Amino acid sequence: MLLRREVRTSGKGVVEITSMVAEAVDESGIKEGLCTIFVRHTSASLVIQENADPGAVRDLEAWFERAVPENDPLYTHTQEGPDDMPAHIKSALTASSLAVPVDGGRLALGTWQGIFLWEHRSTPKRRQLVIYLQG
Amino acid sequence: MLLRREVRTSGKGVVEITSMVAEAVDESGIKEGLCTIFVRHTSASLVIQENADPGAVRDLEAWFERAVPENDPLYTHTQEGPDDMPAHIKSALTASSLAVPVDGGRLALGTWQGIFLWEHRSTPKRRQLVIYLQG
Amino acid sequence: MLLRREVRTSGKGVVEITSMVAEAVDESGIKEGLCTIFVRHTSASLVIQENADPGAVRDLEAWFERAVPENDPLYTHTQEGPDDMPAHIKSALTASSLAVPVDGGRLALGTWQGIFLWEHRSTPKRRQLVIYLQG
Repeated sequence: MLLRREVRTSGKGVVEITSMVAEAVDESGIKEGLCTIFVRHTSASLVIQENADPGAVRDLEAWFERAVPENDPLYTHTQEGPDDMPAHIKSALTASSLAVPVDGGRLALGTWQGIFLWEHRSTPKRRQLVIYLQG
Repeated sequence: MLLRREVRTSGKGVVEITSMVAEAVDESGIKEGLCTIFVRHTSASLVIQENADPGAVRDLEAWFERAVPENDPLYTHTQEGPDDMPAHIKSALTASSLAVPVDGGRLALGTWQGIFLWEHRSTPKRRQLVIYLQG
Repeated sequence: MLLRREVRTSGKGVVEITSMVAEAVDESGIKEGLCTIFVRHTSASLVIQENADPGAVRDLEAWFERAVPENDPLYTHTQEGPDDMPAHIKSALTASSLAVPVDGGRLALGTWQGIFLWEHRSTPKRRQLVIYLQG
């Protein structure tokens, strides 16, 4: 079963999508199987991270911002804005697709795991996901 | 088919799990299909690397340790210890899930490829994996 | 359905394989499902990136080359050449496997997304892919 979803972002930062993905699993009715999430962009990506302390994802964002800064003289692809090339690099460093097993009708995530869409552009966007459910 | 496995780690470093995953493939009886491995943690991750020369994974670990050091003044999420926030970042830079095709009843890995669980915390842990087999 | 493919590379750099993967989807006849691509090497990897402006992937390559340089005194695994250990690290930072949903018989890629094999070694190689199609 293939489901399409849209996530609204508000500039750089992660947006938790665990509930949205869990609802897709519910909708599929699958009890045991695999849930694959795919992001249809090259300047937004997916990551599984701790969702207990918001400080953890803030530090993650800060580390990536320092490692892949805007206005690096290395960049030649600058016509789409200073945040565009860093967005592509950050996407390559994280994931375009994630697979999470489904067990007993639920995502088999660990206690502290949340699924996040990571917006790497500065302005709000509508981001498209495709969720594939099998089982 | 969904299998749960536990891996004991002894502090920072990779643990090869290729045999464990190959045994799961055997147990499933699948001849042609896909094996997906998922780690239920945000401070341990998965990576496929060369398993011939142990120096290769040691250098990989050393590069990550230098790129994502402990006690970076950037971190605010420090209450779980100096190794916790680097563990989250290293996990985001590698993988929470991996998919390896199964062909002729065996993992279709290349000659030099091994599957590793990467422990990013300093103390020994029991890490949970979920392996999903289809075919 | 499991298909094997070979990609010829000409030294460091990305090679777009979107058409090759799309042809595998065609060959499978699958209308709705999932296409998983796996690279059988630890010194070449997979990445989804913008395929409109070639400058974007060039900058991506340049950023990785600077972040993971050759001849870093950190490396001990040097017997296979100065480009080998950086190749392993770059592979760990990107992906060994990618999953792309198939919808209406086509890869559900976004408008700007292309699938690339990333050669991290300096000399031309023949790289092996396994493509698994389900649906």
